[in-house]
Amino acid sequence: MVAGDARQILVSEVGPRDGLQSIAATMSTAAKKRWIDALVAAGVSEIEVGSFAPAKLLPQLADTAEIVRHARLHPGLTVAVLVPNRRGAEDALASGAHKLTLPLSVSETHSLANLRRTHAQVLDEARAIAGLIAEMPAAERPHFEGSLSTVFGCTLEGPIADDVIRRCAAELMAAGADEVGLSDTSGYATPGEVRRLVALVRAVVGDAAVQGLHLHNTRGLGLANVVAGLDAGITTFDASQGGLGGCPFAPGASGNIVTEDLVFMLQAMGYETGIDLTALLRARDVVGEALPGEQLFGFVAEAGLPKGFAAPAQPVFAAELEKA
Amino acid sequence: MVAGDARQILVSEVGPRDGLQSIAATMSTAAKKRWIDALVAAGVSEIEVGSFAPAKLLPQLADTAEIVRHARLHPGLTVAVLVPNRRGAEDALASGAHKLTLPLSVSETHSLANLRRTHAQVLDEARAIAGLIAEMPAAERPHFEGSLSTVFGCTLEGPIADDVIRRCAAELMAAGADEVGLSDTSGYATPGEVRRLVALVRAVVGDAAVQGLHLHNTRGLGLANVVAGLDAGITTFDASQGGLGGCPFAPGASGNIVTEDLVFMLQAMGYETGIDLTALLRARDVVGEALPGEQLFGFVAEAGLPKGFAAPAQPVFAAELEKA
Repeated sequence: MVAGDARQILVSEVGPRDGLQSIAATMSTAAKKRWIDALVAAGVSEIEVGSFAPAKLLPQLADTAEIVRHARLHPGLTVAVLVPNRRGAEDALASGAHKLTLPLSVSETHSLANLRRTHAQVLDEARAIAGLIAEMPAAERPHFEGSLSTVFGCTLEGPIADDVIRRCAAELMAAGADEVGLSDTSGYATPGEVRRLVALVRAVVGDAAVQGLHLHNTRGLGLANVVAGLDAGITTFDASQGGLGGCPFAPGASGNIVTEDLVFMLQAMGYETGIDLTALLRARDVVGEALPGEQLFGFVAEAGLPKGFAAPAQPVFAAELEKA
Repeated sequence: MVAGDARQILVSEVGPRDGLQSIAATMSTAAKKRWIDALVAAGVSEIEVGSFAPAKLLPQLADTAEIVRHARLHPGLTVAVLVPNRRGAEDALASGAHKLTLPLSVSETHSLANLRRTHAQVLDEARAIAGLIAEMPAAERPHFEGSLSTVFGCTLEGPIADDVIRRCAAELMAAGADEVGLSDTSGYATPGEVRRLVALVRAVVGDAAVQGLHLHNTRGLGLANVVAGLDAGITTFDASQGGLGGCPFAPGASGNIVTEDLVFMLQAMGYETGIDLTALLRARDVVGEALPGEQLFGFVAEAGLPKGFAAPAQPVFAAELEKA
């Protein structure tokens, strides 16, 4: 990512974590490695490869440490993992992950259901994780992201008050996070709310600390929300191959945005992702072969590219239209 | 539609025309009337109820004149029809339709395949139709729209040159059209191209003459393209209940954007459509009952509304973000 170059967008593949934790089948360790290799071959530069949640809670991801070690063999790849707490972060640091994401559900009800912790308890974990990282040699320190889950609303609580969101963002940064992401855990995000909440959180913690959106496609608005996120200056979007994923603790919420469709849209809009779409579709095939019977979503894989498709040289920014 | 009030968006339901012409089954005349009644009850204020194409080509729509007469019983409803030529326009005017749309495919290859006419021949038809309308008493004249089909690219020709698009738009207006719409016949539109081509056509014929977009969801970008269209100042969006439709002459292209999902997104963004979403979902049920076995698309019908959903009082415009 070249700072300040609005044409560069980072697509962070979260399928090996968010996708695989949400389905009944368990992908074999060998298949996970093949998938990651295929993603890297397609030019994907950041992959959330697993979660250091307790193996008894997420047996599908019990091999995360081995997957991290494999993924680290790819030069230039940012190997990201989810950590639910300090205990998971210790394992993550031991494995050599480059990026740790700790979710803080702004809905405290959801936080209790999902992580069995209050906000104060999650923030204690965040401080402890930041402390562990601070003890490491500077060159080895991973990036530490706090993710504001259910920030667009919660299936249990409904909309979350702006003040709660502001406080959670500020306290995550105060606890030592390097950035805060916005996560549409429930599939409630809409383009207007994406614009409003990105601006709201940035006003609290600064623009540079809010770069990433994690969007679901539960109500079909996933890519519309990406367009709004681009307008709002977001430069990192999570996505999952075949739309695998969602949150098993948020009933009815399912389906990350589809990496293939996201990359097609970004390229068609003139953004650079560094990803080769044809090779990305091959990586999707690895998932299909490794998870027979699992439904893969996405339009581009079925409809193909438009005849004569060529990505434009430059994005057309909404702001330029307003000036015209 | 209050001119200049950017919060008001017109959702034009095209399912009874574009949807029903694209499927194998024929909906009964009685069911079409029930559907239209249910749409009106939901607050839909413009419906494309049929096409005056020859009945031997589109037998599913052979009852269009009767449907127009029924739809006209609803005060305040704009009853729109598609007309392929002067002959169809004569029938449309006799039926009392309020709005006539003549497609001009900017891909001349597609125009020959679809309407069996060159651009010059379609423009001759447009002039003839405008002439028929001009002979009517002013109070009875319908609105006459020229629709730029395949404007985002053609399954036969690929991308269409900007100059061809500019010329088609200018010549449709010169032929007597009141406005030109942009139609993504092939499902090739992307948010960047929506912004670029709306601006391009407006630069030729003026902003007021370009208000409408007809979008498909072939590659999953339908609602993302709506967000781009809103940014570009578009105020009318065609959509089809359950996503029924597409173009039978463009292989592989299918699926209008889903009215229910569109209305949800617009309301969630703070736009006013005048449509009641719950009643709109009941109208969808009329379609499902009348077309057993036909696949209906759409996310909101399955996922439901977010818990505690309330439409915001005001849209968040991209331009305001730029100012902030």
